[in-house]
Amino acid sequence: MTTTDTAHPLRALLPPECVIVDPDVLAAHRHDRASFCAAGTPSVLVRARSTEDVSVVLRWADQNRVPVVAQGARSGLSGAANAIDGCVLLSLEKMDRILEIDTAEQIAVVQPGVVNGVLAAAAGAEGLFYPPDPGSRGISTIGGNVATNAGGMCCVKYGVTGDFVRGLEVVLADGRVLRTGRRTAKGVAGYDLTRLMVGSEGTLGIVTEITVALRPAHARPLTAVAFFPTIVDGCRTVAGYLGAGYRPSVLEFMDRPTVDAVTRIADLGFPDGMGSMLIAQSDSGEAARAELAAFERVARECAAMDVVVADDPEEGDLLMHARRLVADAHANLGPHLVDDVCVPRGRLVDLVEGLHRISDRYRVRVLCAGHAGDGNMHPVVVFDAGDPDETARAHEAFDAVMALGLELGGTITGEHGVGHLKRHWLGEELDPAALWAQRAIKRTLDPNGILNPGRVLPPE
Amino acid sequence: MTTTDTAHPLRALLPPECVIVDPDVLAAHRHDRASFCAAGTPSVLVRARSTEDVSVVLRWADQNRVPVVAQGARSGLSGAANAIDGCVLLSLEKMDRILEIDTAEQIAVVQPGVVNGVLAAAAGAEGLFYPPDPGSRGISTIGGNVATNAGGMCCVKYGVTGDFVRGLEVVLADGRVLRTGRRTAKGVAGYDLTRLMVGSEGTLGIVTEITVALRPAHARPLTAVAFFPTIVDGCRTVAGYLGAGYRPSVLEFMDRPTVDAVTRIADLGFPDGMGSMLIAQSDSGEAARAELAAFERVARECAAMDVVVADDPEEGDLLMHARRLVADAHANLGPHLVDDVCVPRGRLVDLVEGLHRISDRYRVRVLCAGHAGDGNMHPVVVFDAGDPDETARAHEAFDAVMALGLELGGTITGEHGVGHLKRHWLGEELDPAALWAQRAIKRTLDPNGILNPGRVLPPE
Repeated sequence: MTTTDTAHPLRALLPPECVIVDPDVLAAHRHDRASFCAAGTPSVLVRARSTEDVSVVLRWADQNRVPVVAQGARSGLSGAANAIDGCVLLSLEKMDRILEIDTAEQIAVVQPGVVNGVLAAAAGAEGLFYPPDPGSRGISTIGGNVATNAGGMCCVKYGVTGDFVRGLEVVLADGRVLRTGRRTAKGVAGYDLTRLMVGSEGTLGIVTEITVALRPAHARPLTAVAFFPTIVDGCRTVAGYLGAGYRPSVLEFMDRPTVDAVTRIADLGFPDGMGSMLIAQSDSGEAARAELAAFERVARECAAMDVVVADDPEEGDLLMHARRLVADAHANLGPHLVDDVCVPRGRLVDLVEGLHRISDRYRVRVLCAGHAGDGNMHPVVVFDAGDPDETARAHEAFDAVMALGLELGGTITGEHGVGHLKRHWLGEELDPAALWAQRAIKRTLDPNGILNPGRVLPPE
Repeated sequence: MTTTDTAHPLRALLPPECVIVDPDVLAAHRHDRASFCAAGTPSVLVRARSTEDVSVVLRWADQNRVPVVAQGARSGLSGAANAIDGCVLLSLEKMDRILEIDTAEQIAVVQPGVVNGVLAAAAGAEGLFYPPDPGSRGISTIGGNVATNAGGMCCVKYGVTGDFVRGLEVVLADGRVLRTGRRTAKGVAGYDLTRLMVGSEGTLGIVTEITVALRPAHARPLTAVAFFPTIVDGCRTVAGYLGAGYRPSVLEFMDRPTVDAVTRIADLGFPDGMGSMLIAQSDSGEAARAELAAFERVARECAAMDVVVADDPEEGDLLMHARRLVADAHANLGPHLVDDVCVPRGRLVDLVEGLHRISDRYRVRVLCAGHAGDGNMHPVVVFDAGDPDETARAHEAFDAVMALGLELGGTITGEHGVGHLKRHWLGEELDPAALWAQRAIKRTLDPNGILNPGRVLPPE
């Protein structure tokens, strides 16, 4: 890697090592992990070291009407961090310090580039617990998690990223710096700009510091796994178990083709002939065994072929490891599109039956796994990217999944965000007045439209 | 009560029984429960029956630049529902239907005029639990709870109103109707307008329908009470117990003068000579006894004179009843101002010591009770309203409490809202860019400034 001599105006405003114009480096930063999602050619990559760096970049970009795309680990799945032609890629990855863990108040203050798993480990070392655990937690950053309001496996019991964000430092489009929220447990002074920024995918401001709530460490979870003859039986169990008033800390679903793909990476000795499986965890300490016994009871009522409660935590970790292999397992199947619909739990059966029809209609494979306890499923459309006709059908199937999610009273995105990939679909989910309000807020906070333009909101 | 013949233009647009101009009725609706807070003279009271009624009112008001003040039970404590000269008082009290309780999805859909306790009871009848429990829950409405993002005693474990709001129907200033949020457990499609509306105190839109999350019913709580020789010992216990990783479902504080005032209403046989007391509850089922044993241990380490764990739930209910009498007990002391600061729990000792200094300096009585587990305290300044000098000193003391809250890293309002009472203080808490952003959002969503003008945001 060499830095070329090409001048860039930001060179005059920032330390030279922060301003990168090497075409190879720029090319390597064009994409997040959204498959088949357009990306432009950036003009420069800035590796911010401080809030002041971010402020300088935005002030310059706003004055010169240059689009700015914020990036963290680029592990997003919606194309929100993909480059736009001529943009500044503003990387927050080097702002990666945990500024404070206050064990008495059970909060942490972090820079946006802190990796989720690093924060979780640091909290754990203090006897505390940072629950939001996106599948990408080993690489994704808290800044990115905030930008997408990321979910994960623990959400079914503990909630999503936004539920743990108490306050933010944000740089506005014109470079001004503001603080939102608070450090205290409660606070209602003024409008909730914290939650407005959370999930705004870099379109309303750039987050440069995050104050998150932590919880006391929970008991080491017990794990159960249930195998079902059909997909529908697994989904019925989810609705039945949660509807009966249990609150598992994890309740994850995999269909048979997903299990097969995982088994090709790690053979876990799962039984033959299953249609689907569920993994449930309880971290309720002494009550955990009873909670999983109830899970077993409901699963067997829903025709489970077998239910195994892992007696030792290591066995449970192995099952969770299988779940964490799903993204890799799907990737091994070749070109694919990952969807992210969330439906009422009682409609999961309708969702998986609808996926079957979509697969038939568009003649593509549709696999399914996800956070079934939240109704948040990740149907995956697998296709031959060398076949233009099949590729077109795959994209139609991807859209059909979102239409199905909406039809079932759900949303087009449970946790991945709208980004670039689904921006045309936001107008299908929101009513005209809601879309107007969203656009009006965007114009107010970013009048020159420099912050990740064209993302989240559909073209007018 | 007689309705006068005075014509009002809204008479032509709404059913006559909805449009009230009787001066006596209007006078009776000028105030919420904020003490010593200015209120104007309204021109009309509209009792909306439907979203369409609300829309008609706002369209007319926006076209004619008439201020609109939304009202529910008028149990608020910040003057946000006080009349403004010439305003339309828009009462949502008659929109009081529970539209749906979905036990499978654990959600309820309600109109804004549903009383909190009515929803809680209806959820309870279905084996479900609606946690947010403001002290006013017997009279306050969900619409008002949403408008202020109301808290309560359960917040220390379960969170505040906003944490349970999934979606809203909102009428914008110009009468357009929009839906925000979702019914599903998760969803990240577009900006979080739900949380922007929650806590906006009628200044950004009028909420006409609310979808809330419910939880499975919890175990009947066990209750403990601890008596301390000093105020400081009680506060140290709060920080110590929560810092040790316990999550009580209630952790409430009363100082000695508050206990004395409560005892004048209901003698509960509390010991003499205490400086403060704490009430703790655990609803963790089998773990409850151990959690309260830990509370007792920490309290005794902090010099508790006595700790009693209530063996039967009725005894616990009696202790909670004592806590619920605090507002009446303070009212019996005569004219008073109720504050609502929230500080980091580790600073509670500094808060109560600071209150003592404020009391000395301004020569007024300052009592204190509150949701100590959240750091959210309600210092009460009691004064002789017939003495202009003491009245002036009382208001100075009230302001000094907010200044102290900010100095300790807290907020001017933990749960009551800014409203009219604290609008001059919002600018002390927020930085200039944050204040700019709040004002810009207000102007965007309410360009003619008809929605509760002059509330929340300080004058420019």
